[in-house]
Amino acid sequence: MTSQLAATTVVSGTGLARDLRAEVTSAAADLTAAGTPPQLAVVVATADESTAWYVRSIRGAATKTGIRCSVVDLGPDAPPSRIGATLSALSADPEVHGIMLQTPLPDGAHFADLAASISPEKDVDGANPVSLGRLGAGLTAFAPATAAAVLALLDHYEVPLAGRHAVVVGRSTVVGKPAAQLLLRRDATVTVCHRHTSDLAEHTARADVLVVAVGRTGLITAEHVRPGAMVIDVGTNPTDDGGLAGDVDAAAVSGLAGGLTPVPGGVGPVTTALLLRHTVESAARRSP
Amino acid sequence: MTSQLAATTVVSGTGLARDLRAEVTSAAADLTAAGTPPQLAVVVATADESTAWYVRSIRGAATKTGIRCSVVDLGPDAPPSRIGATLSALSADPEVHGIMLQTPLPDGAHFADLAASISPEKDVDGANPVSLGRLGAGLTAFAPATAAAVLALLDHYEVPLAGRHAVVVGRSTVVGKPAAQLLLRRDATVTVCHRHTSDLAEHTARADVLVVAVGRTGLITAEHVRPGAMVIDVGTNPTDDGGLAGDVDAAAVSGLAGGLTPVPGGVGPVTTALLLRHTVESAARRSP
Repeated sequence: MTSQLAATTVVSGTGLARDLRAEVTSAAADLTAAGTPPQLAVVVATADESTAWYVRSIRGAATKTGIRCSVVDLGPDAPPSRIGATLSALSADPEVHGIMLQTPLPDGAHFADLAASISPEKDVDGANPVSLGRLGAGLTAFAPATAAAVLALLDHYEVPLAGRHAVVVGRSTVVGKPAAQLLLRRDATVTVCHRHTSDLAEHTARADVLVVAVGRTGLITAEHVRPGAMVIDVGTNPTDDGGLAGDVDAAAVSGLAGGLTPVPGGVGPVTTALLLRHTVESAARRSP
Repeated sequence: MTSQLAATTVVSGTGLARDLRAEVTSAAADLTAAGTPPQLAVVVATADESTAWYVRSIRGAATKTGIRCSVVDLGPDAPPSRIGATLSALSADPEVHGIMLQTPLPDGAHFADLAASISPEKDVDGANPVSLGRLGAGLTAFAPATAAAVLALLDHYEVPLAGRHAVVVGRSTVVGKPAAQLLLRRDATVTVCHRHTSDLAEHTARADVLVVAVGRTGLITAEHVRPGAMVIDVGTNPTDDGGLAGDVDAAAVSGLAGGLTPVPGGVGPVTTALLLRHTVESAARRSP
């Protein structure tokens, strides 16, 4: 068992996240000194506990790097019109540089419709469909932070992408689709699988790079992984003991995969650090 | 040879295009009677002869279905700012319901940047990156007519897509990427290949549905096609004798493919008919 584990690189995100936060801290200090203190606004319209946990962790990370983080909690009964109006007001506020809309949303509220009210310049989590379209068209835009974190980890571990076969499992607008776009932009051959895919293992077992973003604990086992493949696990599924589990059965693929991100400690910390980096990038463009 | 050819269905677009034009003709007559004569504006900034040919064919088809088609020819030396201003003016003109920007463009002009000036409501060829993003996010938008034509042909020939493996060769913003989005939306497992793909045949030979939009005559031969696969050839490459050739070597895959679109007479006529349909759809939304 020990020798098996030794063959799979643990693709940790903590070192990269630390480097990114150091960069952000320095940039935030410079911006603040220049009179543009960077500010991230997080809009919440749910009583969901895991959302609250995530927002607290973003706020904590922002504060530590010198970014102001305001949380606008509209409550779980907020009408969509009020959420949209809030996003528009924040878009117009010159002191706000990054805007995030949290999920889940109240019944009747449609994420992409509402996110269209976030100014593309401040859309640090790439939620506005305009950002997705601009990414696809090769124009400048913020990618959703989770998708950007997948690419940042692959680059940090110097995983070659051009001409390689990347398989993305999951086709959400926030992770799967933008990750596929980013991989395509990097000249990978990209396959997108999802719940209608008839033989998942047949596709995933061909991947040089496998990105899994589905939200089903242990979906990916040994039969799904090509020996030596780099596996990026985006899943964050709550466990009974209050922890987090990924979409990949880590024990099953250890010794088989060339590399695997741990959950927690893989994509997650990099995602938060990139949200903050996007915010200082946005602020830097506004700074006189 | 005869028995080989018999096994491959000729996936003609002419019948479907005729049906679509009949629908459009009827809708255009109703709109005109109601005081909203539908109008398509085509913006040209090139002296390219094949563009001129294409624009004439669109104009001819529009006129026959009762749609007014105005061609705004800015000449091959038009500065990008003038092209953008023209697209903005047409977007603001209440008598114009559809706007197309032709390629190629003058040096220094960037298609996606300029197309961002086309009002999404009038973006009947899905050129504005907003349209691509909205498609990806599952919102209402016009797809690029060529990509929409690929899907319309597959539906017309009742090709099942959910759970099937579709391989798209080519990743352009106007065809490959939006076709991949549309196939994904229809629950196909989708692979996108391109010039960096290391072993093209290895991917394409697994496709249930193969869509080729590259612009290289005869790129796809027998080794690239799975027996019985449905092959949609989007290529329109000029031949020495003034005709058109596809990206697929039709002789080589006849008897092997389950179906193949001819070039010309496959995707092309459906594309033009869908441009016109998008224009009447846009006009209908504006009609009192």
